[in-house]
Amino acid sequence: MPTRYKMKIAYDGTRYAGWQVQPRHRTIQGEIELLLTRMTGQRKHVRVESSGRTDAGVHAHGQVAHFDLPGRIDPAYFRRGLNAQLDPDIRILTLEEVEPSFHARFSAVGKEYRYFIYNGKILPPTKRLYRLHEIRPLDIGAMRSAAELLAGEHDFAPFSANPNREIDGTVRTIHAFQVRKHGSEIELEVQGNGFLYKMVRSLSGFLVRVGRGELDPGAAVDILEHGKRTAVVPTAAPQGLFLWKVFY
Amino acid sequence: MPTRYKMKIAYDGTRYAGWQVQPRHRTIQGEIELLLTRMTGQRKHVRVESSGRTDAGVHAHGQVAHFDLPGRIDPAYFRRGLNAQLDPDIRILTLEEVEPSFHARFSAVGKEYRYFIYNGKILPPTKRLYRLHEIRPLDIGAMRSAAELLAGEHDFAPFSANPNREIDGTVRTIHAFQVRKHGSEIELEVQGNGFLYKMVRSLSGFLVRVGRGELDPGAAVDILEHGKRTAVVPTAAPQGLFLWKVFY
Repeated sequence: MPTRYKMKIAYDGTRYAGWQVQPRHRTIQGEIELLLTRMTGQRKHVRVESSGRTDAGVHAHGQVAHFDLPGRIDPAYFRRGLNAQLDPDIRILTLEEVEPSFHARFSAVGKEYRYFIYNGKILPPTKRLYRLHEIRPLDIGAMRSAAELLAGEHDFAPFSANPNREIDGTVRTIHAFQVRKHGSEIELEVQGNGFLYKMVRSLSGFLVRVGRGELDPGAAVDILEHGKRTAVVPTAAPQGLFLWKVFY
Repeated sequence: MPTRYKMKIAYDGTRYAGWQVQPRHRTIQGEIELLLTRMTGQRKHVRVESSGRTDAGVHAHGQVAHFDLPGRIDPAYFRRGLNAQLDPDIRILTLEEVEPSFHARFSAVGKEYRYFIYNGKILPPTKRLYRLHEIRPLDIGAMRSAAELLAGEHDFAPFSANPNREIDGTVRTIHAFQVRKHGSEIELEVQGNGFLYKMVRSLSGFLVRVGRGELDPGAAVDILEHGKRTAVVPTAAPQGLFLWKVFY
């Protein structure tokens, strides 16, 4: 009976082609799996299953993943050993033994994403890899109204980058959708029971258009009723997005 | 009579071999001078003089520099034209015409630097290029006491990386030296009428040793009295340092 381990991971997605293993590309999953396989001296490649993939350039504040080992390791020592050998743009925040029934993806009951916008004339150099830059002043009130209309259970197909690929259908529930502003910084925080492909970037792209005054907040209702993805909804740039938390 | 322009510059020093032009290295000054020369179509290379050099890996929130042009340009349009062609890790924040007597270095009456420390177990990936990472809990009270002892007019030769190279002597005045803590973030803010070579990194390295309990705050007095650089004072890593503001 193998032992299952759960880990919480933070990463800066800038230098990676996303979470998922791909041939001839550096990926977060690829880096961690290679190191785990070497650290534990396994003949068989150690597979790491996450709560879900993140795209190229997207960051994580609290991604969760699990993996199995034939024996037992000491989680605290093992975690430090992993961090010592990973590049500093990937950090294992916590590592613990869990029940074999735990599954990073199937056991998750919800997720929180945050999308960061710098709404000022000049994007500070040290923020350039972690913000969407929007020069035009955004109407926060209008963005909040649109976010409220998007909260709740809806068919979010118009906010999926590939609705036909969604194997679990396209109905999801957004439990909370907050829009916060501190100075030039705008933070979108969205919690839900699941998210479609590029859904948070599509919701963010839509809110930015509302904030610019190109669309009324009420367009959220029209788009949901229309039911299909259209060019009205853009996909916001990846570097503003952080997978913030996974709920179990 | 040429026209003199003053600019305020922010940069992320990560990818550069510091401010000053060097053969076969990318530098901030080199990037800006090349672009200015091309933008203005000058036969003669346009020289940019800053308030002072910053070392490789050091960042700037508000570096100041000046340059001369034979004719006049519109500062607002010209600034946007520069930013459009510079890499986003260098930003011209302001640009204005000034009196020909203004000199970025000689007119400066003081400077503010900030040094950022992440004092927690695991350095967040997105902060790795902008913080010194210190795992051991630092004693902020002791660091504040040491900072107070360092404020004022002193011969700071023991905090210069090369005291014999200092052409204006080694006596400087620190007007204010603050130590702030918010959660795991520690910020050292130092204002003075001038700083010796690697002085802020040396002061920061010393304060970290005090914070760790390796040295008493009173060691500041002994070191200043001793008058010579010793191994007791380390030079803290460049990536924690920001040239924050230049006073005129």
